Amino acid sequence: MADSLISTQTVKGFRDSLPDAMMAREALMETARRVYRSYGFSPIDTPALEYSEVLLGKGGDESDKQLFRFQQGKRDVAMRFDLTVPFARFAAEHLNEITLPFKRYHIAPVWRGENTQRGRYREFVQCDFDTIGTDANASDIETLMVIHDLMEAIGFKAFTIRVNHRQMLNGLLERQGLLEKSTGVLRALDKLPKIGREAVVEEMTGQVGATPEQAGKVLDFAELRGTPDEILARVSETVAGSERGETGVARLRELFDVCRRSGLPAERIRLDVSIARGLDYYTGTIYETFLNEDEKIGSVCSGGRYDNLAALFTKQPLPGVGASLGLDRLLAAMENMGLVKSAATPAQVLVVCFDESRLGDYMATARALRQAGVPTEVYPQAKGLKKQLQYADKKGFTLAVIAGENEFNAGVWQVKNLKAQQQETVAAAELVDRVRAILG
Amino acid sequence: MADSLISTQTVKGFRDSLPDAMMAREALMETARRVYRSYGFSPIDTPALEYSEVLLGKGGDESDKQLFRFQQGKRDVAMRFDLTVPFARFAAEHLNEITLPFKRYHIAPVWRGENTQRGRYREFVQCDFDTIGTDANASDIETLMVIHDLMEAIGFKAFTIRVNHRQMLNGLLERQGLLEKSTGVLRALDKLPKIGREAVVEEMTGQVGATPEQAGKVLDFAELRGTPDEILARVSETVAGSERGETGVARLRELFDVCRRSGLPAERIRLDVSIARGLDYYTGTIYETFLNEDEKIGSVCSGGRYDNLAALFTKQPLPGVGASLGLDRLLAAMENMGLVKSAATPAQVLVVCFDESRLGDYMATARALRQAGVPTEVYPQAKGLKKQLQYADKKGFTLAVIAGENEFNAGVWQVKNLKAQQQETVAAAELVDRVRAILG
Repeated sequence: MADSLISTQTVKGFRDSLPDAMMAREALMETARRVYRSYGFSPIDTPALEYSEVLLGKGGDESDKQLFRFQQGKRDVAMRFDLTVPFARFAAEHLNEITLPFKRYHIAPVWRGENTQRGRYREFVQCDFDTIGTDANASDIETLMVIHDLMEAIGFKAFTIRVNHRQMLNGLLERQGLLEKSTGVLRALDKLPKIGREAVVEEMTGQVGATPEQAGKVLDFAELRGTPDEILARVSETVAGSERGETGVARLRELFDVCRRSGLPAERIRLDVSIARGLDYYTGTIYETFLNEDEKIGSVCSGGRYDNLAALFTKQPLPGVGASLGLDRLLAAMENMGLVKSAATPAQVLVVCFDESRLGDYMATARALRQAGVPTEVYPQAKGLKKQLQYADKKGFTLAVIAGENEFNAGVWQVKNLKAQQQETVAAAELVDRVRAILG
Repeated sequence: MADSLISTQTVKGFRDSLPDAMMAREALMETARRVYRSYGFSPIDTPALEYSEVLLGKGGDESDKQLFRFQQGKRDVAMRFDLTVPFARFAAEHLNEITLPFKRYHIAPVWRGENTQRGRYREFVQCDFDTIGTDANASDIETLMVIHDLMEAIGFKAFTIRVNHRQMLNGLLERQGLLEKSTGVLRALDKLPKIGREAVVEEMTGQVGATPEQAGKVLDFAELRGTPDEILARVSETVAGSERGETGVARLRELFDVCRRSGLPAERIRLDVSIARGLDYYTGTIYETFLNEDEKIGSVCSGGRYDNLAALFTKQPLPGVGASLGLDRLLAAMENMGLVKSAATPAQVLVVCFDESRLGDYMATARALRQAGVPTEVYPQAKGLKKQLQYADKKGFTLAVIAGENEFNAGVWQVKNLKAQQQETVAAAELVDRVRAILG
C-alpha cells in the first residue's frame, strides 16, 4: 500500500505548460502588457469564480456557455468562461471608483467545458483590452493602433488588420432593402472565406430570403478590392441618404486618415467590406487580424465597437470598443513560423562547477554577471565537465564559463560558446565585458 | 422585468482588483519573474483544476485543505489550493522531459475556502521558486541569494533574512536527549516570538514532556545572538559527534562564507536558531524574511530544503529547496510604508483633445512619445479643457500636453506639469526630448 502511487494525469482537457512553452507565453503576455500600458490601458483582475447568475445572464442557456458550475456551500457559483461578462459586472460595480472613459486590460485564464475532440483545451488565457464610456471615434482608431503596435512588438512584419464598420454594412443592406434580414445576411457573409461566393449566395437566397439580385449586390460590395479611399468612394455613393451608412463611411474615412497621418504602414490596414464578426454584439467598427504567411489559422486579434457593455448590471449606458489577442492561436502560428526559441532556461550563461571549494568564486562571478544584466546560473555540484556541458546544451544556454585551479592561478576564465562551438581564454577582470560583448 | 438588474456582487471571499492595486501587484510579479529568471529559474504552469485525489493525497483530510471540490461530469475535481502539490505531480509526470537539477518558478492563483472572518480571501496569488533534483548546498545558498535580490529589487533596503538548519536543530535536540520529542519541541519553539520564553518552557515541560533543564538549554540556544560565526562556534561545540548536527553546522558555515564572498550585506542575513518553520516538511536549511520596519506582519518570503518533493507520485526521490514570496502580505506592508504609488493609469502623459479635427496630430504626437518610451494617452473627445485636466489629475498623469489652433500655427505645445503645477511652451520639434527630460 505504501508503494502505490497517485496518478499524475491532468484532468481531461487540461494541460501543463513546460518551460519552453511557458517562456514563449510569458514573453507574449509581457509584450501585450507593455503595449497596452503605453496607451494608458491599466490592468484589472476579477475572481475566477462568479455567481452563476452573473455568468448566465438573463435566460442564459448554460449548455451554451459550457460552464464549470457547482455549489459552494449554499452558493451557486461557476468559473468564468470569458473576460467580457466579468468586466461588465466589474464596470457596473465600480462605476463610482473608475473615471470614464475607462481603459482596461485583463490577461487571465478562463474555463469552458469545450469538446476536447477538436483539439480544444478547457482552460486558456484571454488577453483583452477595452475603452468604455465613450463613443468617440478616437477610441476606435486607437484600438486599431494598439492592435498594430502589438503585432509589431511581438515581432511580426507581414500582417493585415482588416477593418469594417457594422453601420456602413447596415447602410448597404438598407439600400438593398435587406435591413430586416441583416442577421441572416451577415451570418451568411461571415462564411465567405470558408465556403465561397456561390454557397453564400445560396444561403442568402435560401433560408434568409434575399433575392438573387440582392445577394449579388451584397457580395459585389463584400468583394470590393482597392485602397480604403477607393472602396469608401464606391460605398459612399451607394449609402448616400442612409444615416447609418454615412456615419460608418465618415468614421472609417477618419480612421484611415489618422492612421496615415500617424505613420502606420498603409499595407497593413485594409478595408474589408466582407467581415461582419458574428451577430448582434458589435455595432460599429470591427477588426480582424491576419498573418500574411499563415492566414489559414484565422484572425489572431479581433474585436469591435459595441453600444452597451453592461446592460444586465446597470442602467448607465457604457458604449465601448476593444479587442482580444488570441494567445494560443498566435503561439501555434509562431511555432509554425519558427519564431519560438526552444530553450528550457531563461539564463544565458552557465557557470560550471569544477571545484566545490571554489563555490564562493563561482557564486560571486555569477552575481557580477547578473548585475551586468546577464541571467546566469551556477551548476550546483562538481559533476564531470562533460555532464555539465551536456546539461547546458540540453537546456539551451549560450555560454559556459569554466575555471579550475589552473585558471584561478592564472587569473583567467575559459569561455565556451555552446552555439558556435568556440572557446576562448578571458582575463577574469574582463569576463563580464567579454560575455556581454559575445551575447550582444 | 426588462428593468431588473443582476447583482454585481463578487462571491463571498473573492474580490476585484482595481487598477491601482493591480498595477502594484503586476509590478511585484514582474520583479519576481525578472529576479527568478536572472538565476536560471524557468516558468511553468499547471491547471487550475486537478483530480481531487491529486490534491488530497493519501488519507488527506479534505476539510483541512478547504478545497473547492466538485463533480465535472464523472470526474471528481478540485481547484488547486497551493502550487507545491501541483508541482510534485508535474515533476513526476514530466520527469523524462525536464533535466535535473530542475529550477522552476510558478506565479499563479490558488483557492481555499478559508474563514473570511479573519480578513482572508479565498483566492490569492502564490509566487514560488524551487530547485529540485539535487541536495547540493549550492542550491540552498542560491535560494538565499534569490530571496535577497528579490527583496532588494522590490525596493527594500532594511530587511533581514533569518536562516536556520533543521539538521543542526535536531543535532542540538539529540544532544539534549530530546530527538524523539522533536516535533513537540519545535512546535513550541516556533511560538517563541508570539508567546515568549516562559510560555514556551511551560509547553515543552508540559505536554511535550521535556525536563525544565532540557527546555532551558533549547531556549538558550534559540536565543543566542551574535554573528553567524559566533553562534556557529557555540553550537559546533555542543553538537560535536552528532552527524546531523555537524552537517547542519558545516552547511550553514559554507552558506555564510559564500554570501560574504559574493558581497551580500552581512546585516541582512542572520542566523536565528529559534526558527523551525512548522513541522515535518522541511529537513535542511530554512528561511524567513522580515521587513525591519514592519516585523509584525510576519515573514514575507519563507521556505526551506525538503528531502522528497513527490513521494506520492513517483519512486524517484526528488530532494529540493525553494521559497515562496507572500505577495498579498508584501503589498499590504508596502502600502503601509507608502511604497505603493496610487495612480489609476500606467501612462505618464495625456495629450489633451482640444480640437477634434486635429485628431491626426494628437495621435501622431502620442505615437512619437510612445516610440520614445513614454506611455501616452490621447483624450478621445474635445471636451472642455478643465474637464480633461481633472481627468488627468484624477487618474494620476504627470504631464498634460496641449495644442489648439494657436499652438499649431506657432509650431509649439503647452506642457503642463500636473504634479508641480507648472506650465511651459515647447517647440513642437523639441516636445519629445523635453517631455523625456521632465519625466527624468
